[in-house]
Amino acid sequence: MQQNELQKIKDKKTGVWLIGAYGGISVCVIAGAMALRAKKCSANGLVTELDIFKKIPLLPWDNLVFGGMDIRKYSIVDTLKELHTNASVLSHDMITDYNWQISEVEKNIYPGIIVNCGKAITETSDKSFVKDGHLSSLVAYIQDTLEQFKKNNSLDDIIVVNISSTEPEFFIPEQYAAYEGMKSAFSSNSYEKYPASVVYAWAAIDAGYPYINFTPSQGANIAGIKQLAIERKIPYSGNDGKTGETLLKSVLAPMFLLRNLEVMSWEGYNILGNRDGLILNDPENKKTKIRSKANTLDKILGYKPHSKVSIDMVPSLNDWKIAWDFIHFKGFLDTPMTLQFMWQGCDSLLAAPLVLDLIRLLEFSHRHGEFGAQTQYSCFFKDPLECDEFDFRLQFFNLINYVSSKEN
Amino acid sequence: MQQNELQKIKDKKTGVWLIGAYGGISVCVIAGAMALRAKKCSANGLVTELDIFKKIPLLPWDNLVFGGMDIRKYSIVDTLKELHTNASVLSHDMITDYNWQISEVEKNIYPGIIVNCGKAITETSDKSFVKDGHLSSLVAYIQDTLEQFKKNNSLDDIIVVNISSTEPEFFIPEQYAAYEGMKSAFSSNSYEKYPASVVYAWAAIDAGYPYINFTPSQGANIAGIKQLAIERKIPYSGNDGKTGETLLKSVLAPMFLLRNLEVMSWEGYNILGNRDGLILNDPENKKTKIRSKANTLDKILGYKPHSKVSIDMVPSLNDWKIAWDFIHFKGFLDTPMTLQFMWQGCDSLLAAPLVLDLIRLLEFSHRHGEFGAQTQYSCFFKDPLECDEFDFRLQFFNLINYVSSKEN
Amino acid sequence: MQQNELQKIKDKKTGVWLIGAYGGISVCVIAGAMALRAKKCSANGLVTELDIFKKIPLLPWDNLVFGGMDIRKYSIVDTLKELHTNASVLSHDMITDYNWQISEVEKNIYPGIIVNCGKAITETSDKSFVKDGHLSSLVAYIQDTLEQFKKNNSLDDIIVVNISSTEPEFFIPEQYAAYEGMKSAFSSNSYEKYPASVVYAWAAIDAGYPYINFTPSQGANIAGIKQLAIERKIPYSGNDGKTGETLLKSVLAPMFLLRNLEVMSWEGYNILGNRDGLILNDPENKKTKIRSKANTLDKILGYKPHSKVSIDMVPSLNDWKIAWDFIHFKGFLDTPMTLQFMWQGCDSLLAAPLVLDLIRLLEFSHRHGEFGAQTQYSCFFKDPLECDEFDFRLQFFNLINYVSSKEN
Amino acid sequence: MQQNELQKIKDKKTGVWLIGAYGGISVCVIAGAMALRAKKCSANGLVTELDIFKKIPLLPWDNLVFGGMDIRKYSIVDTLKELHTNASVLSHDMITDYNWQISEVEKNIYPGIIVNCGKAITETSDKSFVKDGHLSSLVAYIQDTLEQFKKNNSLDDIIVVNISSTEPEFFIPEQYAAYEGMKSAFSSNSYEKYPASVVYAWAAIDAGYPYINFTPSQGANIAGIKQLAIERKIPYSGNDGKTGETLLKSVLAPMFLLRNLEVMSWEGYNILGNRDGLILNDPENKKTKIRSKANTLDKILGYKPHSKVSIDMVPSLNDWKIAWDFIHFKGFLDTPMTLQFMWQGCDSLLAAPLVLDLIRLLEFSHRHGEFGAQTQYSCFFKDPLECDEFDFRLQFFNLINYVSSKEN
Repeated sequence: MQQNELQKIKDKKTGVWLIGAYGGISVCVIAGAMALRAKKCSANGLVTELDIFKKIPLLPWDNLVFGGMDIRKYSIVDTLKELHTNASVLSHDMITDYNWQISEVEKNIYPGIIVNCGKAITETSDKSFVKDGHLSSLVAYIQDTLEQFKKNNSLDDIIVVNISSTEPEFFIPEQYAAYEGMKSAFSSNSYEKYPASVVYAWAAIDAGYPYINFTPSQGANIAGIKQLAIERKIPYSGNDGKTGETLLKSVLAPMFLLRNLEVMSWEGYNILGNRDGLILNDPENKKTKIRSKANTLDKILGYKPHSKVSIDMVPSLNDWKIAWDFIHFKGFLDTPMTLQFMWQGCDSLLAAPLVLDLIRLLEFSHRHGEFGAQTQYSCFFKDPLECDEFDFRLQFFNLINYVSSKEN
Repeated sequence: MQQNELQKIKDKKTGVWLIGAYGGISVCVIAGAMALRAKKCSANGLVTELDIFKKIPLLPWDNLVFGGMDIRKYSIVDTLKELHTNASVLSHDMITDYNWQISEVEKNIYPGIIVNCGKAITETSDKSFVKDGHLSSLVAYIQDTLEQFKKNNSLDDIIVVNISSTEPEFFIPEQYAAYEGMKSAFSSNSYEKYPASVVYAWAAIDAGYPYINFTPSQGANIAGIKQLAIERKIPYSGNDGKTGETLLKSVLAPMFLLRNLEVMSWEGYNILGNRDGLILNDPENKKTKIRSKANTLDKILGYKPHSKVSIDMVPSLNDWKIAWDFIHFKGFLDTPMTLQFMWQGCDSLLAAPLVLDLIRLLEFSHRHGEFGAQTQYSCFFKDPLECDEFDFRLQFFNLINYVSSKEN
Repeated sequence: MQQNELQKIKDKKTGVWLIGAYGGISVCVIAGAMALRAKKCSANGLVTELDIFKKIPLLPWDNLVFGGMDIRKYSIVDTLKELHTNASVLSHDMITDYNWQISEVEKNIYPGIIVNCGKAITETSDKSFVKDGHLSSLVAYIQDTLEQFKKNNSLDDIIVVNISSTEPEFFIPEQYAAYEGMKSAFSSNSYEKYPASVVYAWAAIDAGYPYINFTPSQGANIAGIKQLAIERKIPYSGNDGKTGETLLKSVLAPMFLLRNLEVMSWEGYNILGNRDGLILNDPENKKTKIRSKANTLDKILGYKPHSKVSIDMVPSLNDWKIAWDFIHFKGFLDTPMTLQFMWQGCDSLLAAPLVLDLIRLLEFSHRHGEFGAQTQYSCFFKDPLECDEFDFRLQFFNLINYVSSKEN
Repeated sequence: MQQNELQKIKDKKTGVWLIGAYGGISVCVIAGAMALRAKKCSANGLVTELDIFKKIPLLPWDNLVFGGMDIRKYSIVDTLKELHTNASVLSHDMITDYNWQISEVEKNIYPGIIVNCGKAITETSDKSFVKDGHLSSLVAYIQDTLEQFKKNNSLDDIIVVNISSTEPEFFIPEQYAAYEGMKSAFSSNSYEKYPASVVYAWAAIDAGYPYINFTPSQGANIAGIKQLAIERKIPYSGNDGKTGETLLKSVLAPMFLLRNLEVMSWEGYNILGNRDGLILNDPENKKTKIRSKANTLDKILGYKPHSKVSIDMVPSLNDWKIAWDFIHFKGFLDTPMTLQFMWQGCDSLLAAPLVLDLIRLLEFSHRHGEFGAQTQYSCFFKDPLECDEFDFRLQFFNLINYVSSKEN
């Protein structure tokens, strides 16, 4: 039966709709998929290439077709070149070799929307490349564009991925967070009720497509969309890809817990230099990010150590991110001891493989009739939706259990 | 029934026989037990004080009676004072308050043995305070001393713990590693066949007492002793307490594995300044230690990254140990990224609570009729005996499963 | 002649008036002076104990008599005990041995003043232990108290040292910053014109005593006081003792300059846990501190790299301060490279010896008829008054030149 | 007059003879000079581009003609490509743009010599590309080749630079270290008396060319060569370019000295992954390097702190070098505190600009009739010849004084 399924998906073409298509992550996702197809890179960083995933039929990399939206008029190749020149990542050959394929992708990229995205995001947008309008017209625009993408590329399914910049926190009154309230808001000519991430999530799920919120923005994390997903039988996942400092927290905090070493303080300082860093330099947007990072320690440890998460823009770092974490803990006889770590990674290249994994996994979920928040994928997220498990290993066991349960 | 058992152990007096009784770890074990009894410290660092262990009846701290052997004529209080003055750990009050109790422990401390311990250890010993002789007389001496310890203190059981300095690697020919060979060697007036740790292990288990090898020395890790333990129905555990850098390796390496991030290099530099460091400064003794630390990465990752473990003596650090680990891994598209950590802990205070935990656990094993290598306690060791699991979390799951299975 | 002078100062008793007398630095200054007298500690950390200073006659440690003011009713011994217990510094013997001498010092400690010190400082004060009033009465109170201190202890001179908490920035309009404006303000019953540090500086210098501003607060850094000091022929020094991160900046930045390595970014993160940290946690007070730290890089390098100085309160660190600095520089062919450092020191013990040095040096200046800002002592300060030299080595050469010029 | 000199050197063509011409440093020197000529890079990393050097007429980058020797048959472009691909340094454009110029340099590269270079170096050589023979024939070969290089390229002067791998320590008996002994050895058909670096130094200086020993190998550091240089009136410089950890030591140690902070321990761990690292992995060669790094601390501090310098080969790092230094010092009241740093730089790109600087400076020295060890350039070296100054700033002052004294 799995054999049959493998046969079936061999020809299944799945669209990947990237919100933030000209950003560093998108470009690494696209170039990465091309390198994987061309067998020009190893499986490094791809969770779904671990042996355990051979148990279930996952879409081959060949079958992904990329498209998406952005609010800046730019070019994939230019982002690639910038990453190569300024961050010393991605090979020069890549830019040359994938030029033709990339121009095919460019055809699938459309103007994005800006609603309640805050000053920092709005200011980086190209006014001429942004789709404007009231809620019902924005949803219609997104859904029409998805339809066109599907038709133009003869797609069988589309996975919508939000990898755009972090929105400021946006308060949605309870009545508009509820399903009925959302339904009426989205069919009205209202403007101010939701931030863009929520509009994208609603449009995608309403149109029948899985939605991945790889950012800390609100996206599908709202009661009305949860119910919509259940009605439409659509799976979704989020929030905020767990790529660096928080990943380490979710791995190290359990060690302190299980060795009964009280964490007194855990101070984390992050510096990075890309567009993400620029947006997070705005205190409003930073707040959303920091809140997304806040739960891990407290939930794992069962108490609240003194803890600060700081994120600062350091332009010279470009796409590199450095985190210094200082952990002050009490050893035996209440003796203070310390662990410090420095994590140094390329932001976009840490995120991109997880996005590729999630595309495959959400496609699998959709194909297998799963819907609602896919809590079994919580190990990929800093702030997993509908899930109270923050310990990376326990999250991973859930993933393994799911995969094993799906083995034919 | 557990209630009955709890009642029964309330009055059970268990001896703790510390090999290396004047060393930093021993002294922290003794002072720590006193602080726990006096409720002058928290449960920090004690694994058996985690909630899960409430499921099984473990010996209260009040019931431990300390004694042991050393090869240097010294004093517990002097070691305490040294730790306080030179390493700024253990409070001044501790030295004053436990003076009387400690002098009771002093009465139980006897000269140790030196056999094939290498030059570094032999040179630090006080010739006048060392028990000499051929194998059969050494075993008799140890067993007589244990008997005297038991009688003098009206003990119900004794747990023997080796926390003496790391011996150099010592090659035992197969015939003398086998049970029959050991039996005949230990009843002869042979001298040269085993290092001290093996003699201690044989004497303890032969006399019916559980044995914990908290050092990387060979101890019970030899076919003949394994069989002896099975015949005598005695539990034992080892090797080498997992207190710092290796603990972190066994927690972090699985993260790289599960995120499919290839570890290219993992270089670990340890510096410390206590007597342990002094002995490990001898290349022969260091080799044993480094071998004990070597397996963790390879076994967890399933391949051998470039890796070096370096240990250097830095006298000014006294009992503090600093580890700098540099981990070079390949991210997506084979991009090199790095994680570095610095671990800064007090060596003796990292080890002491694990020793206290293991005393309780081996006493429990013995009381419950377990025997042979206690692989369920592998999370406490760098190089767990008879156990191929090096991943800390999986080791801990084994411990939890064992505890749960013993719940009445 | 120097011989004569040495003879003369042998009996000279100099008072040290500590503003912030119950704080950690003060207490380390006092206990340190006692340990130096008793020859119970080495000269570590004391610049004026370097051989070069044998060229000039400096006051012996024996001749210092301590007193001062604080705004919290507290006790020197209690601060000592706290440092010992919570920060594991200062020996237990110290507390016992100097008890009697310390109670003599306690007699010389008086309520301090609070004027425009901001919310954070005001809130930590004991209302009952604070001297209140308009400017002229405050100056009179300080000067009377100094006179009493002098008389009670038969002093020949007094050095006033401000080591109280950092005040928020306080804007003084030009007319009140000028000499005439200050004179009339200080003889009126005005309240709101100056912060406490300025009042202390005015009172001290007006009364004929040298003033050291070891904090980033404004103190003597104001035109009117400069002129007062010239008229009264009184020397003063400041601002803000250079004890850690900034010291390293002033040592490392010249290396980058002289190797022509462009510093792109220099990000500094400081964490500490004492009362100083608590006050600096208030954004208003922190601003003063960060401004004081800001000049060093720009002045040394001759351009402004991207740079952030962050200071956060981490209570568990108590009196320990950790700084992590990340320096991103361009090597040959514009290749980015990095230097990171972590500085880990006890805040009060880093500052205390510099305070003792400055007391001796300002007493020397006063004795030798120097007056105004003592720029030759700039190597002790983060933000040296009337001095544009921030490079530690060049500052130190100035000090050496001064000392050599004073050699008889 | 300086104007005249500037005019004169405008047309002076100076050859640069690189021993180790296919190594990473050489290739960065060559490509760097081309980038400087093409104004494709900034002056970053070049000391002689600091303003102070405008005072003296230094050779323009345009006037350098490269050639040299190596013991491996290789290609400059291939080394360039390796650095680009494996170490992510040097731009792709560089490889393309300088192709033609580089092939001109290739014509000037000849087989090198191997004498007493130890196993590690000998094993990496291409037997067919090595010039063999007894001492007199080797000297003749080197001098003939230099003559040919001069003639082929119409050169006015040649600077010989040793940037080949570190040789093992080689003991030269006193009689052969003396001038007379060397003269007779070099005119005989002896083989075993000197290592290659000494042969190169003798041949170069004897032929009238300045010699720079950028490696820790013995080179010109021998009595006989010193006298030869005086007789021939030739300047030379060495040993061992100060590029990273030792540079930092020579900058930071003075801070501890001048603040009277006793350094108890200074432990330095270096990891790197290039050919230099490979050679240094051999204990014999490593010994030479570590000895070269040893003096700095002791000479600056005036006492010997506990100190270890460790160098390990970590292949994945390629041309990158990481140093972790742990500095344990005593603060006031003998309180231990720590400074740690991590230095992360590209080995070849740290060295290359210093080589370019030294070429210019030795050419200047030669032109101005200086001869013997050029101690005024000691700031460039870890172990400066004929110079007892190790403090970077004092070394740099000597350089500035020299430059100022030469200003017309």
